[in-house]
Amino acid sequence: MRKMEQYRIESDLLGELEVPANAYYGVQTQRAINNFNISGQRLFSYPEFINALAYIKKGAAKTNYELGLLEENLYQNIIKACDKVISGKYNQEFPIDMIQGGAGTSVNMNANEVIANITLELLGHQKGEYQYCSPNDHINLSQSTNDVYPSAIKIALYNMNKVLVEKLKLIIEAFRQKGIAFQDVIKMGRTQLQDAVPMTMGQEFEAFAATLEEDIEKLNNNALLFVEVNMGATAIGTGLNAPKGYAKRCAENLAEITGIPIVSAPDLVEATPDTGAYVIYSSAMKRMAVKLSKICNDLRLLSSGPRAGLYEINLPPMQPGSSIMPGKVNPVIPEVVNQVCYKVIGNDLTVTFAAEAGQLQLNVMEPVLCHAIMENIHFLCNALDTLREKCVSGITANKEVCLNMVKHSIGIVTALNPYIGYKNSTKIAKEALETGKSVYNLVIEHQLLSQEKLDEILDPKNMLNPHNKFTV
Amino acid sequence: MRKMEQYRIESDLLGELEVPANAYYGVQTQRAINNFNISGQRLFSYPEFINALAYIKKGAAKTNYELGLLEENLYQNIIKACDKVISGKYNQEFPIDMIQGGAGTSVNMNANEVIANITLELLGHQKGEYQYCSPNDHINLSQSTNDVYPSAIKIALYNMNKVLVEKLKLIIEAFRQKGIAFQDVIKMGRTQLQDAVPMTMGQEFEAFAATLEEDIEKLNNNALLFVEVNMGATAIGTGLNAPKGYAKRCAENLAEITGIPIVSAPDLVEATPDTGAYVIYSSAMKRMAVKLSKICNDLRLLSSGPRAGLYEINLPPMQPGSSIMPGKVNPVIPEVVNQVCYKVIGNDLTVTFAAEAGQLQLNVMEPVLCHAIMENIHFLCNALDTLREKCVSGITANKEVCLNMVKHSIGIVTALNPYIGYKNSTKIAKEALETGKSVYNLVIEHQLLSQEKLDEILDPKNMLNPHNKFTV
Amino acid sequence: MRKMEQYRIESDLLGELEVPANAYYGVQTQRAINNFNISGQRLFSYPEFINALAYIKKGAAKTNYELGLLEENLYQNIIKACDKVISGKYNQEFPIDMIQGGAGTSVNMNANEVIANITLELLGHQKGEYQYCSPNDHINLSQSTNDVYPSAIKIALYNMNKVLVEKLKLIIEAFRQKGIAFQDVIKMGRTQLQDAVPMTMGQEFEAFAATLEEDIEKLNNNALLFVEVNMGATAIGTGLNAPKGYAKRCAENLAEITGIPIVSAPDLVEATPDTGAYVIYSSAMKRMAVKLSKICNDLRLLSSGPRAGLYEINLPPMQPGSSIMPGKVNPVIPEVVNQVCYKVIGNDLTVTFAAEAGQLQLNVMEPVLCHAIMENIHFLCNALDTLREKCVSGITANKEVCLNMVKHSIGIVTALNPYIGYKNSTKIAKEALETGKSVYNLVIEHQLLSQEKLDEILDPKNMLNPHNKFTV
Amino acid sequence: MRKMEQYRIESDLLGELEVPANAYYGVQTQRAINNFNISGQRLFSYPEFINALAYIKKGAAKTNYELGLLEENLYQNIIKACDKVISGKYNQEFPIDMIQGGAGTSVNMNANEVIANITLELLGHQKGEYQYCSPNDHINLSQSTNDVYPSAIKIALYNMNKVLVEKLKLIIEAFRQKGIAFQDVIKMGRTQLQDAVPMTMGQEFEAFAATLEEDIEKLNNNALLFVEVNMGATAIGTGLNAPKGYAKRCAENLAEITGIPIVSAPDLVEATPDTGAYVIYSSAMKRMAVKLSKICNDLRLLSSGPRAGLYEINLPPMQPGSSIMPGKVNPVIPEVVNQVCYKVIGNDLTVTFAAEAGQLQLNVMEPVLCHAIMENIHFLCNALDTLREKCVSGITANKEVCLNMVKHSIGIVTALNPYIGYKNSTKIAKEALETGKSVYNLVIEHQLLSQEKLDEILDPKNMLNPHNKFTV
Repeated sequence: MRKMEQYRIESDLLGELEVPANAYYGVQTQRAINNFNISGQRLFSYPEFINALAYIKKGAAKTNYELGLLEENLYQNIIKACDKVISGKYNQEFPIDMIQGGAGTSVNMNANEVIANITLELLGHQKGEYQYCSPNDHINLSQSTNDVYPSAIKIALYNMNKVLVEKLKLIIEAFRQKGIAFQDVIKMGRTQLQDAVPMTMGQEFEAFAATLEEDIEKLNNNALLFVEVNMGATAIGTGLNAPKGYAKRCAENLAEITGIPIVSAPDLVEATPDTGAYVIYSSAMKRMAVKLSKICNDLRLLSSGPRAGLYEINLPPMQPGSSIMPGKVNPVIPEVVNQVCYKVIGNDLTVTFAAEAGQLQLNVMEPVLCHAIMENIHFLCNALDTLREKCVSGITANKEVCLNMVKHSIGIVTALNPYIGYKNSTKIAKEALETGKSVYNLVIEHQLLSQEKLDEILDPKNMLNPHNKFTV
Repeated sequence: MRKMEQYRIESDLLGELEVPANAYYGVQTQRAINNFNISGQRLFSYPEFINALAYIKKGAAKTNYELGLLEENLYQNIIKACDKVISGKYNQEFPIDMIQGGAGTSVNMNANEVIANITLELLGHQKGEYQYCSPNDHINLSQSTNDVYPSAIKIALYNMNKVLVEKLKLIIEAFRQKGIAFQDVIKMGRTQLQDAVPMTMGQEFEAFAATLEEDIEKLNNNALLFVEVNMGATAIGTGLNAPKGYAKRCAENLAEITGIPIVSAPDLVEATPDTGAYVIYSSAMKRMAVKLSKICNDLRLLSSGPRAGLYEINLPPMQPGSSIMPGKVNPVIPEVVNQVCYKVIGNDLTVTFAAEAGQLQLNVMEPVLCHAIMENIHFLCNALDTLREKCVSGITANKEVCLNMVKHSIGIVTALNPYIGYKNSTKIAKEALETGKSVYNLVIEHQLLSQEKLDEILDPKNMLNPHNKFTV
Repeated sequence: MRKMEQYRIESDLLGELEVPANAYYGVQTQRAINNFNISGQRLFSYPEFINALAYIKKGAAKTNYELGLLEENLYQNIIKACDKVISGKYNQEFPIDMIQGGAGTSVNMNANEVIANITLELLGHQKGEYQYCSPNDHINLSQSTNDVYPSAIKIALYNMNKVLVEKLKLIIEAFRQKGIAFQDVIKMGRTQLQDAVPMTMGQEFEAFAATLEEDIEKLNNNALLFVEVNMGATAIGTGLNAPKGYAKRCAENLAEITGIPIVSAPDLVEATPDTGAYVIYSSAMKRMAVKLSKICNDLRLLSSGPRAGLYEINLPPMQPGSSIMPGKVNPVIPEVVNQVCYKVIGNDLTVTFAAEAGQLQLNVMEPVLCHAIMENIHFLCNALDTLREKCVSGITANKEVCLNMVKHSIGIVTALNPYIGYKNSTKIAKEALETGKSVYNLVIEHQLLSQEKLDEILDPKNMLNPHNKFTV
Repeated sequence: MRKMEQYRIESDLLGELEVPANAYYGVQTQRAINNFNISGQRLFSYPEFINALAYIKKGAAKTNYELGLLEENLYQNIIKACDKVISGKYNQEFPIDMIQGGAGTSVNMNANEVIANITLELLGHQKGEYQYCSPNDHINLSQSTNDVYPSAIKIALYNMNKVLVEKLKLIIEAFRQKGIAFQDVIKMGRTQLQDAVPMTMGQEFEAFAATLEEDIEKLNNNALLFVEVNMGATAIGTGLNAPKGYAKRCAENLAEITGIPIVSAPDLVEATPDTGAYVIYSSAMKRMAVKLSKICNDLRLLSSGPRAGLYEINLPPMQPGSSIMPGKVNPVIPEVVNQVCYKVIGNDLTVTFAAEAGQLQLNVMEPVLCHAIMENIHFLCNALDTLREKCVSGITANKEVCLNMVKHSIGIVTALNPYIGYKNSTKIAKEALETGKSVYNLVIEHQLLSQEKLDEILDPKNMLNPHNKFTV
């Protein structure tokens, strides 16, 4: 981490340990640094999480003060210290690995120590003079890792979800704009990869928008589960060492501080080990990833070619596509988004395993669960921006190619069912496939319909009966 | 399937085929029987699904009649035929494999054929005389597999969810009753499998109830997504061959017939390939399974022993536990429930893969997706009943064992923090562990608190501050 | 199960219970029938498993006899009883649910009881007169569920794998035949769904064969792990109640009886809870499923069209493709195989969860693990047969379509790199795309190469340099 | 990335772009930097991968030189440039995101550009003067991303596996040492969490060693699949633009350069899109993770307590266990290892999805697949070191606690089966449980065996019949 040329000595249950002299964190953070070299992915990469910890500590301090457990001056300076952490200036003081044992104790103690030391300096003391402000007795007062850690994760995720949903809204709008731009592009719809019946490309792109739009509500509704925190539960939900009224008051203070409609969980014994909110929120992200992956598969398929593929659309070229094949341009942006989706699905499985492994009064696997969800949010935010900016907004349609496929298709015979029946239509279709003749000519040839009637029915525009926002 | 001693000949696009003479299904069902010998799990094992298909066909017939596309007599007899199918009497006429290619075409045609042939008999015709009532032109009128199949799955799942939730409510109540019965059993809470602080067994069992209770809403809310059907979409959502007004009217008719608040999906092009509702409903089941598995893990842990385990509770003995170890009784019921949960999680992954594989205007993998979800519901219903009847309702507590562990625990030192500080408490705890002495005696020995004060603080009842429904 | 009009009374640790009078199974099987109504999938659906149980019991009896623990007459009749079970005649006597608690105790006792009662009849006694031949003391002699159950699963899987590999070999051969049939069909290769460079369809289909061929060894090698059994371990691997020399001798007897090179696991304490062999065998099946799914995706893509898709190949039509679109024929066989693959992947996750849940000296989740693997084998066997018979063997190529795409492609410019450099080739490619002109004409136009040279380089045959079995 | 105060201009198919003046990478790397801001995890975090790329480029250059395609001076300097990259000095020149679109084209071009520019400087030219040494025409000569990228991944993974196996061997040895140290600690074995029969703790820890030991071979065998590379395949396996004999010669050169027994894949068309080797190697890692997770679960269970748990072993205390509960020490190291295992399982699912998504002649999802496997190896290496150093090597046994549980157990009645029969043993066990009396006293009381015989049978040492390396 740091060069430890100068250090101070701190001690805990296990004895003394050297801590860098200028570090705001203390002995327990140092132990975590020593113990957990696992993922290389550190707390400071998730500033929303650090902020949430500071919000929690601020809310707890306020509640303790209101209930008479903290004296005024100390309280005021703890609040200032929390605000300093929220400012982002101290992020580097949170260097511990996101994947850790101890059910988040190291994260909670990291926050307790940093805030205690900032407070000490505000009070005119030296770092480490914990007799004036102790990480455990003051900053962690009326709290336990088992209420602080999950509550902080929830606040962080609530805020991170907002960002994710914003980015989701932007890409929905980008698809919608393309839906409008392409509303006159008539093309073949395909089911089971076989030619089906005509549609507009506008309908296709609007459907991309519409299907993702459903995830806004899904994500937001599930993120709402995060507003229930278990502050006041302390170790196992029985509230040992938390004063009467603390849980409710702390939730109210947190609501005020964060602007999130935070409430106290109705059953703290249940809430403490419960990971249900994470599991279903992760599922909602997975659902979005599944849809996004399907859309990217479609974009890659529709832009396949240029000569030996569908070639209905063009994606903006982002880089030369091949080190050997000149002129090749590949759908690199949908490709990378597909891969992010697979990562999201993998992380969702990690969440499932971690959630199932809870035992008795705690789920000790929350750190990896938290990491998996937060990683997913970061990856998805990046993927959504990338997909929108570098791909969707620049897509163009090959209108002629699309129309040609409609004209030569057999699928348009479907429109004749109501006039000549399914059996006759089947015969025409079969003959068209075998002979290469067009449906149009065969119907005339077999005298099944007059040319006028046929022209009317087979006008592609009459075959489009969109039951959506574009329907007149 | 059947001995085909007597048969009739039917034909389709691919030519003629023998169908058992007494079968109500026809040529396309027969092709599916021949094509798909995959899972051995057949449509008739899911009567809710068969019913849903009949509801759909009834709703479609009614709508076609109202829009003037079906004449009165035929319409009336189709309705009667649908009702006969709903009665369950014709379930054996749906023998096709649940896992099939064709995106459900075989299922839809199976329904079309059976209903057509029942109708034909009602009209006084022979089976197979489709000139009087055709599976395609009459029963499937204004429809396509691509709207019928997903709509039927949704109606079936909506109804199956109701049953699942009923069973969930029963087990919640069983846990809650135990919570009440055990509210005076004082025991050690455990975090990270290490002794933490005291609680009541009542709190523990009430928490099992409370955590599962949250899934009622989660399941029901997600099942509500199933009320949006895409009838009227026909092949790809453009509504080709469905008359004007059909989609809306059909949804209204289905709502009336089923008693489910069915509505027409706002964007039929989006709704047709979309599997989002299945994905998130499957996730909600997975969430429940994760919780249920955690609870079963706890039950097995708490009943471990009898002499070399925790032995806090007794599960009702269901069978001799060992072919070699006499007298051994094992927690076989939680064990089987754990295994069902793993199956549910596995099936949820199958759903994820199937959903991601949708392409362009259809998701052709819906059959396996549908099978995975329906199998999960059946398995979970069985598991919930089994767990309640054969385990939870008969659990008893070993009150003395529990109390003894509290008395000898070190964890109770936590209650002294507010009086002697975290550092002093740590020293006492450490000495207790090293010497085997009790926390109580050590505090007296070190003159940290008076015996009276200590008695008051360490009274287990004072350490329980339940922030839940049992809190006074 | 059965109508229990007539019954006999049997008893065990938990007391008396009615058993159908004519049942060969006894009280403990009856308890399992009563306890586990979970999946509806019963032991008798897996005759290979019943056989394996009988092999085990036969091997154990022989070993006990040889070590002087069973007297001659009883031994001879137990062997006869085992052979009767192996004949398949008593399969219906194994009606218990595949997914059960108790770590397989019910399965082991089911076998013990059926074999005991057949033996009793052979000895001239009545069913249930266990004083003459006891399920526990004689049939289960020197054994425990904890060695019998996993050993039987392993023998069953070893044999089931043989069948799976046979079917795999058949489909490999089918793909290989197509590879030969299509070796003169020149087509565009595609990378990232974009036109790449030419290849033959023979190379493409031979690659399907070659990639699946690698799985033969992978499956067989991993199935070889099943030859290590833990007979003689009894309860936890310490061999309590098994006579000296039993483990080794029993393995030898089993090897002789089954023809499988069975050996005794080197560390029985390790072997008893270990599920590593199942995990990696399941992974090998998953690997095959992943490849099979990729191949089916390709088959569906290559057969897309007929007018608005790639249309390079034709799959044999198996059923009308649509209830609304006349003449549509869908790739229903690859579709159903894809779905089986998703099921296999889901079941592999179930195996993973079950394996991870082992605790201390046993893995109690083996029943669901066993069911998941056996279900996968059955489904895959069916899928491979279906894919071969109903799809691969009937595939035809659209040679003209393929050649046309090569002729019009831009990708062939790659072949010019060594002659005109990557930069020049890039310019030609770009101009071809923008103008719609052919690469051929542009190279002439820009005087980059003589027409003769160009003809030579761009002869598709010269662009094929297959580094595989078809290479000259 | 870098402050771009000074830059040079480079160009490609898409036009001109600024590249930092001092960068060794060029325009295509710069495009990748701009295009892919996804995971924040960059190529330079995987130095084994960078090395493998340089090995590949060195092997390709040597082969090109030998086949007369590169002139001597240029060849010699390319080799020098490759060696410089292998030295690790240029790692920071590989700043692109591990998760990217383009199937690794950016990675290959990053290597091509860096090596070209180093070569240019060695030749006395400026960076970017590609007329003297071109990334495409010289460094990538006879190659394509589609052979370079997977071949480099394979070489990297082969080497990374070696490190993983070394760390695995170390932890096996640590468990084995504990097995020896604990061979006199007699304890109760447990099946289904219920008391079973006695064993030694030595057997238990040796079994941990033995079960992990099986993974050495499994990992190594599957890593052996990585020796088959597809160099010479170029774009799609047909070897277009690679000279005759290139594939075989290049594999030989790579074998010589790397010391790995590299061979050319027998079917390059098959090998190019195939991801089977990754899938099964990832599965082998997953298998190890499943076992490791089970072991960590056991360690946490066995060390539970100290007063209300099993308390058979003590894990070395690594940090204070609680911010609120003084003296609590938690099993933080097994906990973090469990979490790594869940991450490994999650990443294995990502691999599965990525593998299944291959299409036609390429699998474009290899970057995320590669990242997932490499991340797993890094995490597992860290976890194995952490578990060994900070946990296993310091474990101690509570011998008295263990012996006491054996003495009071009922499970020892199993040893009486051969003397008094299963039925009598069952009665004794039942009475012991109901009355609290010991098995010993009850057998005497019921006069079933003489005291001498009983003492002999029930001597725990006689109940241990370990069928493993400790067996005499």
